[in-house]
Amino acid sequence: MPSPAPAFDVVDLIRTKRDGGELEPDAVDWLIAAYTDGRVAEEQMSAMAMAVLLRGLSRTELARWTAAMIASGERMNFSGLSRPTVDKHSTGGVGDKITLPLAPLVAACGAAVPQLSGRGLGHTGGTLDKLESVPGWRAGLGVAEMTAQLEDVGAVICAAGSDLAPADKKLYALRDVTGTVESIPLIASSIMSKKIAEGTSALVLDVKVGSGAFMKSEADARELAETMVGLGQDAGVTTVALLTQMSTPLGLTAGNALEVAESVEVLAGGGPEDVVELTLALAREMLAAVGLTAVDPADALADGRAMDVWRAMIGAQGGDPDATLPRARETEVVRAGRAGTVQRVDAMAVGLAAWRLGAGRARREDAVQAGAGVQLHVRPGDRVAAGAPLFTLHTDTPQRFARAQAVLAEGYAVGDEPVGAQPLVIDRIG
Amino acid sequence: MPSPAPAFDVVDLIRTKRDGGELEPDAVDWLIAAYTDGRVAEEQMSAMAMAVLLRGLSRTELARWTAAMIASGERMNFSGLSRPTVDKHSTGGVGDKITLPLAPLVAACGAAVPQLSGRGLGHTGGTLDKLESVPGWRAGLGVAEMTAQLEDVGAVICAAGSDLAPADKKLYALRDVTGTVESIPLIASSIMSKKIAEGTSALVLDVKVGSGAFMKSEADARELAETMVGLGQDAGVTTVALLTQMSTPLGLTAGNALEVAESVEVLAGGGPEDVVELTLALAREMLAAVGLTAVDPADALADGRAMDVWRAMIGAQGGDPDATLPRARETEVVRAGRAGTVQRVDAMAVGLAAWRLGAGRARREDAVQAGAGVQLHVRPGDRVAAGAPLFTLHTDTPQRFARAQAVLAEGYAVGDEPVGAQPLVIDRIG
Repeated sequence: MPSPAPAFDVVDLIRTKRDGGELEPDAVDWLIAAYTDGRVAEEQMSAMAMAVLLRGLSRTELARWTAAMIASGERMNFSGLSRPTVDKHSTGGVGDKITLPLAPLVAACGAAVPQLSGRGLGHTGGTLDKLESVPGWRAGLGVAEMTAQLEDVGAVICAAGSDLAPADKKLYALRDVTGTVESIPLIASSIMSKKIAEGTSALVLDVKVGSGAFMKSEADARELAETMVGLGQDAGVTTVALLTQMSTPLGLTAGNALEVAESVEVLAGGGPEDVVELTLALAREMLAAVGLTAVDPADALADGRAMDVWRAMIGAQGGDPDATLPRARETEVVRAGRAGTVQRVDAMAVGLAAWRLGAGRARREDAVQAGAGVQLHVRPGDRVAAGAPLFTLHTDTPQRFARAQAVLAEGYAVGDEPVGAQPLVIDRIG
Repeated sequence: MPSPAPAFDVVDLIRTKRDGGELEPDAVDWLIAAYTDGRVAEEQMSAMAMAVLLRGLSRTELARWTAAMIASGERMNFSGLSRPTVDKHSTGGVGDKITLPLAPLVAACGAAVPQLSGRGLGHTGGTLDKLESVPGWRAGLGVAEMTAQLEDVGAVICAAGSDLAPADKKLYALRDVTGTVESIPLIASSIMSKKIAEGTSALVLDVKVGSGAFMKSEADARELAETMVGLGQDAGVTTVALLTQMSTPLGLTAGNALEVAESVEVLAGGGPEDVVELTLALAREMLAAVGLTAVDPADALADGRAMDVWRAMIGAQGGDPDATLPRARETEVVRAGRAGTVQRVDAMAVGLAAWRLGAGRARREDAVQAGAGVQLHVRPGDRVAAGAPLFTLHTDTPQRFARAQAVLAEGYAVGDEPVGAQPLVIDRIG
């Protein structure tokens, strides 16, 4: 006979955490399960979330919390594939289209990449929003389709099903309206519960730092990275993190179709230096994490193998890789008011401008414009003449130009100081 | 034209408090009003309550918070009475029947006492529960009845209407289930919003300290007392607090009818020394607060004037002061296992025992037994022979004896050490 489940009093658990105590493993399991099925009310979980935000979770508590979130739903299993699985997660940045060239590139080198992605909210775009600008492409796949595509093509980028970590879905929506988003353990467990439930055997994290990132300071980003790496390792998933710079946008585009076009350039062997550098750095980490160290991803970019996987991946999900990408109906160029050196191009300002132009959404139910966004013509350190184009703004709704320009105006400067290069990859944790 | 109400984002306000910032006065007004009418959701207010518990409220914030809770409902006004109004509030203790002799005593000395009381929950009894053991007595009065009784009799003890500080009612119910009760500013504003809305011109607070009190430490009790005195003074209500001992029960009874009987003994000029001492100390503070310093309440106890007011007060609310009080159907005596000196009688243990015998309720909708409770035959420091009666337990449901005895067994000891007297009134703040 099974023994009866231990019963806990949620108010006692909240008080324990509130007063800086440690929750018992069974209590954490009970809390997450009872919250998922409604025995713990929303107002009780929000008090708990605030207590966790202010008091923290120990490594033991956090591992159990994350395991309980995974156990609230289904866990995928790709161990039957002939290739090792490895995935990547970015904490989100402006112009961060890296998943698009990266997934086919790593697949071209012999791994399987099961990338479950989301849509964007606020100033950072979502990978699914970007891919949905490809005519015909669809984000929703069943498990059987996903498994078959991983075996045949090696890479799949699709929407996460609602069966994956439903506790996280519920808790994230609650945190969003209760001022409890900014908790490193809660952020870490939210990300890692979904990634571990996704069934990957290895994971590389791209933790962004800077004005355009969720983590503004390197210390916070490092703490988040270390927390997530610890969680992955505790769950038996080989996990590595790179801390990467997000004060300046990644590449020369922020938007949906604009970023797809730039990703295709990278897959064709071109594209902006920083996008290529980060794509290769992450690809090497992913391949190393599953023991595929004999292949150089730079070769797979140069010889077109990554592009072949991209075309197969897009095609397998109904997309036409040869279709013309949507373009915004209107453009406007922002020009330099004087000659000089570009002092800075602020990632947050560019992200907000792209959002205001229609590339992002304010509410989950909003639509995005496929063609909208910001194209950068310069990078910090570039010399420009007076009147030289700095940015091209794209939108279907020209009344948005003024608000986009206003936010962008605060985000760059042309001056006389020389500007040194910043390293893109700040550190590696794992 | 009225200017539009300022709009605030509740998530911003929660984040401000969470990060240790100060809420603007207008923001506090908006928060309480929006919570009362449902624009701020329960889960948002619970996160705010937890942030307040862990971060505190400044004196300015707290005064505004309390004023906003008062403004959420009606404010009574007894300024038309021919007598000055003064009220007392106790933070709750075991055997704390002081309101029963105190209200008629202070009325007998010339003041009007508009005492709005509550029912008990947990180990401390409620004044209304106690009075409801008097046959015929009813707690519910309208404002007109209350005003007339204050003018004619001078004292009224009745249930608070739902129009008084409805924000507090809603917030208290939320705090109760979200582990956010134990916040000194929230406790202080909950008590003071109701007491100020009640329309008294002066207020004496009895803040209990010790095992049977809500505040276990003198430091916490002092902080609560100082906070409430400050709030009263800021609101123009003359406010004084006594810190009083609650490690040992007050008097020799804990229960409903048992405490009424003991209160009547005090009004008849007898009763336990500590109950008389505290009744007189609080009466002197109340009378001084409204300038009635020429009368000695000890005289009004001795000469029967306080008893006359008690009889009139009970009668005005339908009760029969001459009726026999209900008695429990069963009793059981706990005896000393050895001869010696009573080392301690723990207030919390006695309170829990009385609760388990049926004197208190676990849920708001539970009924209480009028006759149930604990009668004490000894006080700490008393010498007893082996086999001497220590406690008599009263209940209508004898299956409750075992659980009551179990908790009581942990709460007393007979030994050989001499036991010194503890002061009842620890300090005065105001």
